[in-house]
Amino acid sequence: MTITPPALSIFETLESEVRSYCRSWPAVFDRARGSRLVDEDGHSYLDFFAGAGSLNYGHNNPVLKRALLDYLERDGITHGLDMATTAKRTFLETFQNVVLRPRDLPYKVMFPGPTGTNAVEAALKLARKVKGRESVVSFTNAFHGMSLGSLAVTGNAFKRAGAGIPLVHGTPMPFDNYFDGTVPDFLWFERLLEDQGSGLNKPAAVIVETVQGEGGINVARPEWLRALKELCERRDMLLIVDDIQMGCGRTGGFFSFEEAGIVPDIVTLSKSISGYGLPMSLCLFLPELDVWEPGEHNGTFRGNNPAFVTAAAALRTYWADGELEKQTLDRGEQVEQALLALAAEDPEPGFGFRGRGLVWGLEFPDKQRASAVCARAFELGLLLETSGPEGEVVKLLPPLTVSAEELDEGLRTLARAVRETA
Amino acid sequence: MTITPPALSIFETLESEVRSYCRSWPAVFDRARGSRLVDEDGHSYLDFFAGAGSLNYGHNNPVLKRALLDYLERDGITHGLDMATTAKRTFLETFQNVVLRPRDLPYKVMFPGPTGTNAVEAALKLARKVKGRESVVSFTNAFHGMSLGSLAVTGNAFKRAGAGIPLVHGTPMPFDNYFDGTVPDFLWFERLLEDQGSGLNKPAAVIVETVQGEGGINVARPEWLRALKELCERRDMLLIVDDIQMGCGRTGGFFSFEEAGIVPDIVTLSKSISGYGLPMSLCLFLPELDVWEPGEHNGTFRGNNPAFVTAAAALRTYWADGELEKQTLDRGEQVEQALLALAAEDPEPGFGFRGRGLVWGLEFPDKQRASAVCARAFELGLLLETSGPEGEVVKLLPPLTVSAEELDEGLRTLARAVRETA
Amino acid sequence: MTITPPALSIFETLESEVRSYCRSWPAVFDRARGSRLVDEDGHSYLDFFAGAGSLNYGHNNPVLKRALLDYLERDGITHGLDMATTAKRTFLETFQNVVLRPRDLPYKVMFPGPTGTNAVEAALKLARKVKGRESVVSFTNAFHGMSLGSLAVTGNAFKRAGAGIPLVHGTPMPFDNYFDGTVPDFLWFERLLEDQGSGLNKPAAVIVETVQGEGGINVARPEWLRALKELCERRDMLLIVDDIQMGCGRTGGFFSFEEAGIVPDIVTLSKSISGYGLPMSLCLFLPELDVWEPGEHNGTFRGNNPAFVTAAAALRTYWADGELEKQTLDRGEQVEQALLALAAEDPEPGFGFRGRGLVWGLEFPDKQRASAVCARAFELGLLLETSGPEGEVVKLLPPLTVSAEELDEGLRTLARAVRETA
Amino acid sequence: MTITPPALSIFETLESEVRSYCRSWPAVFDRARGSRLVDEDGHSYLDFFAGAGSLNYGHNNPVLKRALLDYLERDGITHGLDMATTAKRTFLETFQNVVLRPRDLPYKVMFPGPTGTNAVEAALKLARKVKGRESVVSFTNAFHGMSLGSLAVTGNAFKRAGAGIPLVHGTPMPFDNYFDGTVPDFLWFERLLEDQGSGLNKPAAVIVETVQGEGGINVARPEWLRALKELCERRDMLLIVDDIQMGCGRTGGFFSFEEAGIVPDIVTLSKSISGYGLPMSLCLFLPELDVWEPGEHNGTFRGNNPAFVTAAAALRTYWADGELEKQTLDRGEQVEQALLALAAEDPEPGFGFRGRGLVWGLEFPDKQRASAVCARAFELGLLLETSGPEGEVVKLLPPLTVSAEELDEGLRTLARAVRETA
Repeated sequence: MTITPPALSIFETLESEVRSYCRSWPAVFDRARGSRLVDEDGHSYLDFFAGAGSLNYGHNNPVLKRALLDYLERDGITHGLDMATTAKRTFLETFQNVVLRPRDLPYKVMFPGPTGTNAVEAALKLARKVKGRESVVSFTNAFHGMSLGSLAVTGNAFKRAGAGIPLVHGTPMPFDNYFDGTVPDFLWFERLLEDQGSGLNKPAAVIVETVQGEGGINVARPEWLRALKELCERRDMLLIVDDIQMGCGRTGGFFSFEEAGIVPDIVTLSKSISGYGLPMSLCLFLPELDVWEPGEHNGTFRGNNPAFVTAAAALRTYWADGELEKQTLDRGEQVEQALLALAAEDPEPGFGFRGRGLVWGLEFPDKQRASAVCARAFELGLLLETSGPEGEVVKLLPPLTVSAEELDEGLRTLARAVRETA
Repeated sequence: MTITPPALSIFETLESEVRSYCRSWPAVFDRARGSRLVDEDGHSYLDFFAGAGSLNYGHNNPVLKRALLDYLERDGITHGLDMATTAKRTFLETFQNVVLRPRDLPYKVMFPGPTGTNAVEAALKLARKVKGRESVVSFTNAFHGMSLGSLAVTGNAFKRAGAGIPLVHGTPMPFDNYFDGTVPDFLWFERLLEDQGSGLNKPAAVIVETVQGEGGINVARPEWLRALKELCERRDMLLIVDDIQMGCGRTGGFFSFEEAGIVPDIVTLSKSISGYGLPMSLCLFLPELDVWEPGEHNGTFRGNNPAFVTAAAALRTYWADGELEKQTLDRGEQVEQALLALAAEDPEPGFGFRGRGLVWGLEFPDKQRASAVCARAFELGLLLETSGPEGEVVKLLPPLTVSAEELDEGLRTLARAVRETA
Repeated sequence: MTITPPALSIFETLESEVRSYCRSWPAVFDRARGSRLVDEDGHSYLDFFAGAGSLNYGHNNPVLKRALLDYLERDGITHGLDMATTAKRTFLETFQNVVLRPRDLPYKVMFPGPTGTNAVEAALKLARKVKGRESVVSFTNAFHGMSLGSLAVTGNAFKRAGAGIPLVHGTPMPFDNYFDGTVPDFLWFERLLEDQGSGLNKPAAVIVETVQGEGGINVARPEWLRALKELCERRDMLLIVDDIQMGCGRTGGFFSFEEAGIVPDIVTLSKSISGYGLPMSLCLFLPELDVWEPGEHNGTFRGNNPAFVTAAAALRTYWADGELEKQTLDRGEQVEQALLALAAEDPEPGFGFRGRGLVWGLEFPDKQRASAVCARAFELGLLLETSGPEGEVVKLLPPLTVSAEELDEGLRTLARAVRETA
Repeated sequence: MTITPPALSIFETLESEVRSYCRSWPAVFDRARGSRLVDEDGHSYLDFFAGAGSLNYGHNNPVLKRALLDYLERDGITHGLDMATTAKRTFLETFQNVVLRPRDLPYKVMFPGPTGTNAVEAALKLARKVKGRESVVSFTNAFHGMSLGSLAVTGNAFKRAGAGIPLVHGTPMPFDNYFDGTVPDFLWFERLLEDQGSGLNKPAAVIVETVQGEGGINVARPEWLRALKELCERRDMLLIVDDIQMGCGRTGGFFSFEEAGIVPDIVTLSKSISGYGLPMSLCLFLPELDVWEPGEHNGTFRGNNPAFVTAAAALRTYWADGELEKQTLDRGEQVEQALLALAAEDPEPGFGFRGRGLVWGLEFPDKQRASAVCARAFELGLLLETSGPEGEVVKLLPPLTVSAEELDEGLRTLARAVRETA
């Protein structure tokens, strides 16, 4: 494929320097369907990024699209604040019947502003209100969002520096396997909690991702998550699972924490919850934590009803049975086999890999290499991005609806990009 | 109109106690068009709330709807992060040609997460980064959002208490007319800045609304805004105008600060910028302030392309000429006349009023009265909400596209509700 | 008097650049008695600074000296932490009998670390603990100390900048007469408190000096102090009077707030409480506020027993009757007459003045002038220092035991320095 | 010895509940000499507490006493702010000649307010100013003082809770041997620093005690201190050694860090620096760090000249040769032998012990036991105190000038108290 340099001028002249993805992918995208995007010159790209996890059901999924068009055409409520609407009721009923009840999850549902960071802000506020303490523990290489509350529990030094104020009230602890298994789990955390002289401000809550996406595809073991849950209970801290990127089936089950068999106190969802890439977020919590006063946390777009419509359609379509979950695990197996094969090509393959469900990462000790792999993949028509604190990890995040053939195609392109950047 | 108590059960059983508007308006809304909503029982409501200012062009505006349906039908990019897309380019070009150039505004455009509070968080971060100072001055009864950065510059004590941490780095100053004209403008602020012993942490920026919506429809005079701009320049502080609720034509001109003839350093837009009630926000700033590093502030839904499509359509339709602006001012005049007439009915009318363009407030010294007026209006088929620190102000915020007849109908209903709650 | 440049070398080579007074007064002082210091070359200086208010009874006051020498000679406890000692008991009994009982003050007595800033830190901690709130209101041009808690309620921008962290949890309000009487007292403060949308974090306490010493000899009127006390009661805030510089008789009565007839909730004392220039401080508070846990605030030198000995001797000698108070007011009158006369020499005298008891300030609109006056006074054998946010005020702070003749001598020297710097 | 309950009434009625030591030692002390105190009933107590380390040369040391009396009798300057005085010059010269030069230490000398916490506040301010960062790393079970800056880097949860505001800008790291040698030194700290995604705010400085006194007599190994110094250099952080309790010969050498062969960037001294229990403190730092502006940190009692006089006398008497250092190590050996013998009495002795020089701790797994030992020792005429986060450690801190016989007597009393509380 030959790429003509696109006419990016107004993006360069009018848009702020803060723009980033458009720098890695110098194309002007026009339309998309399933696992593929097409740019304005007609070039097609296989998407192994999926809107950073917002497009688990692919671009413009036809089932959801039909529901959305029907709703818009009949002038359903578009902007609903937190008014009761028929679309919201349908979503709530579907979420209850398809997601919560089958999993015996007793959560109350809150609609914060329709972005991940807003759900995290709500979760942190609630935890602090319930416990009457300011401090929250997060983990190394956590990513929870860019507004000040979320940023304070995010690890990345570059992002943190953007705050312009000292970020306080958060303390990082080592994520699972941070010391490659050489240190017992929670040794430091537990000791700080039990030692009255440790200097740790007693936390209201712990916030964790089961797999750190932005942090470099760091996968927590189920036993580590269970031990964390137990620690939280024993030490009177709430456990918040930020399932914004890993929820909605990314790791197989609807919630990424199901595999570990735990029930977090608070859960945040966003990204793929609407199913169609429309802004939406949820904050779920145990009923006894629902101490909010009416309107104590609000937001203009918390009632994005078109998103409720596609969300309900997505739940009905993909979560009424176990098909998608099974398929995701199968596809994950396919990825793992391909990466094993790629690694086996070379006695010193130049990368390690890890993952779960349909989220995988290739870590390159040569830290520039990951960017080079992504750049070459783009030339070859595959969208891939890096993650990790120094961008040293190539992240695979295809739509869950990717076909085995598309997945194979993408993995072959990836392999080629790895080989050609060696 | 008789209202059958709606079946709210799942809203009450599953949704968090944080819900609020649905408590004031016990109906389940189903569809909407222009200035009217219809609930599932077929009752119609005239909307003088307009999605808290997000629906300046009415519900499901047919011109924007057509553009949106076309885009969705042709599988245009829905979720775009900050990739270059054709929809984004069209929006940028339209915004430049229709909004910025005719007003000689040299702003760079940033797409934060698609909510107002996210735009404010971005503005505050940028101001702090540019000036290297933490402190920001806000005004009494300001409202800027619910995430921690925005909440710290918001006045409402109830909302602030929800933070769960002390909100610092912000200092309130008296808004225009806070002392009913008995104290010279900026007397306190100016003196704190010039006195090296005042104890004020030197601010990076001042954030202001030209009309405080949530704060009670407090209208800043143009000369006060000009003096504020001059003060900021003289004292090396950036001026941020939060035009989230008052921008996009609410007060007449596209930006609410146009009337004062000032050019703020940073401007936030959200609510009606997409025109269709879809989540979207912008942060505008002078080019010399564009010191962001790529990706230093980001967010999953900052590329909500359907919103770009409706936003561009709205700009083309309503802002290519001065018709809407003129009509808004005319309608505002109509509101003012009606309120004058209502007040004249009684030598002691029991309320005062103020407003600008199509945002008006009736303040009731009897603070319970405003809620009673809104409740009665709802029974009469008119959606109205209160604002102000103690909910003592009835807020009129009809769509800008309201017809003279609809406006007259709503104002008559309002008058009746006022009379019947006397 | 001719001054030989002193050999300052080790002060310049070994001591930190932070040193300050030794820069204004280039002499090496050796001994002192009453109102006079003598340098190592035998030059004598009349002291109108009195250890920044720590030497109200003069240098090496012979009565206190005798008590101190007796105590040391008989090997009385020197360092006592907060052990019960006979010296401490004597001090407590004397303080109760001579100071508290005659004034009907029911205070409990706390011995913080023996410096003013430590007493302020204790007062702020206690107020926050009692009220369960973080915020404290201070006043423009307040000075309360240099440790982080005290510095956060201090006004001076230069001092604040030294903190190295943002100073938060404090909000400045205008001190008495900040706007030269053009604005009603507490207009801004009261309004912020009553307005639920003001954005002010509700304060635990207000901390105030009755006369701001470092801030430029700003004298609060008794009626302003009474109104402040009333405001604090009405709004559920504790009133802390920082009487470190103005207490111990500086303004006439033992406490500077006696004239206003108020009883603060918390009072801090230091500087002249030991009477001999020895480090000591007290924090006094109403009994119902004594919610400290044992050891919750402590410090190594809080039992500086030699200071207790001189403190008790000072109370017995100077406060068993009303002689010193009367003399202080007389001497104050003498100062005022001299300043009136000096001002009358010139139709445009180039300075204004104000004061109370034996603390007076001459403010020079030409801000360099105050330093020049002090420098010339030093050459003429008189120690004077500047205060105010820009050092624009010459501060008169002679020992309370100054004789009428010494006072006259110093005032004539001051007058000469003023004339010669015109 | 029989103890008559002392008349504590005024201590109980007038003094605040915050008092603490007087609760453990129900006696009214009157006079003291060397290692012994005498109460008002004539009972004598052997002092193994030494003013919490402020009386390294014993109570009312006769050599220092003579110098102090001479100075006071000749009316030497008592209160000197930071004026140049002959007493200060003598101290500076002596400190330079006896302490700094023989150890090749190039420090500048700052006189903060005369308490330990003030020296720490100055050190933290300076480190933050030099590095332009807010964060400081401290260690588990650190104790640095009770004013807000120092308290934020102190570990004890009870003390921290007294702050009344969230204590931020500090992060605790594990002190030496925190995990009993099972985890490599600085594993967590180093990893947080090198990982750009760790979430640690980059520290300006690290503050450490070589032996944690209040924290439970935790002794850092020399190699750990050296590795810490090396880490600080490599990671551009300043190393502050808080030598307030362990300096002035407590561990043998004048500075406790001499044994490790390191040169900290900043050192704080207080407690025994005056030698006589008089309030005094120093902050020492490398000359290139002396970026203070004149007066940027000050305090009323920073020129406590009587303390300078006794300090100079103490340095001349005890530090001109190596006798005291040698004796301290010998006495330390004597303590260790006695504790070994005591432990050997029982195959399961019920306590562990550790120490260095003349600071030793006995840790009792039965946490109430340590208090019981101290209470019994008091009855037997020996002053001992507990330390550690739960008061589980009996702390031995006799004067360095204790005779071998006194030490033996005290150790025998201790042994008896241990036995009798078993």
